Amino acid sequence: MSRDLDPRDGIEVEAVRRPGPTTRARVGQMRSGTLHERRDDLATEEPLEIRIQAGERRRTVAITMRTPGHDFELAAGFLYGEGVAAPADVASIAYCTDDDVPPEARYNTVTVRLHGDALPDLPSLDRHFMTSSACGVCGTASLDALRDRCSPLPAADDPLRVSPEVLYGLPGLLRRAQGVFGKTGGLHAAGLFTAEGEPLAVREDVGRHNAVDKLVGWAMMAGRLPLGGHLLMVSGRTSYEIMQKALTAGLPVVCAVSAPSSLAVDLAREFGMTLVGFLREERFNLYAGAHRVGP
Amino acid sequence: MSRDLDPRDGIEVEAVRRPGPTTRARVGQMRSGTLHERRDDLATEEPLEIRIQAGERRRTVAITMRTPGHDFELAAGFLYGEGVAAPADVASIAYCTDDDVPPEARYNTVTVRLHGDALPDLPSLDRHFMTSSACGVCGTASLDALRDRCSPLPAADDPLRVSPEVLYGLPGLLRRAQGVFGKTGGLHAAGLFTAEGEPLAVREDVGRHNAVDKLVGWAMMAGRLPLGGHLLMVSGRTSYEIMQKALTAGLPVVCAVSAPSSLAVDLAREFGMTLVGFLREERFNLYAGAHRVGP
Repeated sequence: MSRDLDPRDGIEVEAVRRPGPTTRARVGQMRSGTLHERRDDLATEEPLEIRIQAGERRRTVAITMRTPGHDFELAAGFLYGEGVAAPADVASIAYCTDDDVPPEARYNTVTVRLHGDALPDLPSLDRHFMTSSACGVCGTASLDALRDRCSPLPAADDPLRVSPEVLYGLPGLLRRAQGVFGKTGGLHAAGLFTAEGEPLAVREDVGRHNAVDKLVGWAMMAGRLPLGGHLLMVSGRTSYEIMQKALTAGLPVVCAVSAPSSLAVDLAREFGMTLVGFLREERFNLYAGAHRVGP
Repeated sequence: MSRDLDPRDGIEVEAVRRPGPTTRARVGQMRSGTLHERRDDLATEEPLEIRIQAGERRRTVAITMRTPGHDFELAAGFLYGEGVAAPADVASIAYCTDDDVPPEARYNTVTVRLHGDALPDLPSLDRHFMTSSACGVCGTASLDALRDRCSPLPAADDPLRVSPEVLYGLPGLLRRAQGVFGKTGGLHAAGLFTAEGEPLAVREDVGRHNAVDKLVGWAMMAGRLPLGGHLLMVSGRTSYEIMQKALTAGLPVVCAVSAPSSLAVDLAREFGMTLVGFLREERFNLYAGAHRVGP
């Protein structure tokens, strides 16, 4: 089950995938006042435990509800986004197949083995939010804390320029690349594109932050980090969390089908990112970083 | 800023609300190839720190990104859902207005003061997921862990019966009751209804779990818990987390505009709940608990 990371291939190989991204279920359909039973596909939601290991030391970093599939990317992208592991730190990624793990849990635990014998410090609950307990939490303090970890992206002098036509095309490309969504209606999607609008990877998940982690993990395993010059497109809304993950990966442009939150806009402006929202039917709103959008 | 809880009133009074649920921002609108600047409303996203206090002991339980407004309900509902505090445990809820908290952070910290001098045990990261570290995580283990805290709802002998016509009406009632959503397009909504479809409370938030916590907190402060005989309607999808919060509050019926996840359906079936999805335009899917739906 173990595999070594090879920056040249970048495609995750999972020998067996169980449980799968969709689950068949009997469902009652109420139509015109009558209930019919049929079989339907649901988006699978299962917990994933992410562990790190260095030498013989092992520790659980997070447990997240996710849609199975691309689990190694999810683990790698999550650890990168949290500042726990850079690409060069990772020796291998594997499912935990210890004999004491029952079969139904075997594909829900991923261990990221790091080089060396020392486990890194783990992020605390408070890290993103507080500069000190006396200060109290607020959006401004959250952005200040982020500044300790991330530099602003190149602003006015960034040569990256994305045409409105390329942006108009992204939602359709994302939809067409989505495999599971069409079947279940239950998944968030995130796609990574070149500045010319070429799709590089699309990932889906019940959690929108997981879909972005999977993309970042894909880029990490493909040796493509940081992602300067690339575009991220997400199917839903943009929040602080999504923007923070994009910033950490070096993504200068984030586009979404729906609205951004106030703190997503603040973060984009503060760190020189371009933020596009309500991108539908040859229209969009531009919330930050207008210098990167134009013919 | 402090207020005592009175089970008879149930309406939260916030003397000053700052920051508000929406934030004005300058936005570029690209229409027909031309960028126009205008002012727009964004859904506010700010961190909220939830503290508990007993006697002189004080501890941070969680920091969550949320939309300001109904913060006391959010804190109360969150603590109830996590099993940290029952209604009888709560003495008062107040914003932290210590002098060392700067003004911009003053409405982002809520302290729930409990009766007595002892702080309760706090939930750990793993609690919902793991029965033991040897077992590994999986959906089944998550439901097993939940069984330690929650009893199944009355199943076949539950006298509650909801007509399809009442269900058809819920999405429209939720939309009409939403204040901020129409302006920003950026918020999840959750509504609490009687079995006859009368709206009792509607809450909005950038996080859908927060919107449900606010409703549960409303019910808690109104002395209405548990919520047997009531309906929960949410604007988006249903996940394990939403169903678990509904179950903990005793809600037998959960309805959603969009799809449920596989684990949401498993939880509903396992605990005798009724789960409705894709509730739109006089149609819906019934995933569990059909015995409560009928004329």
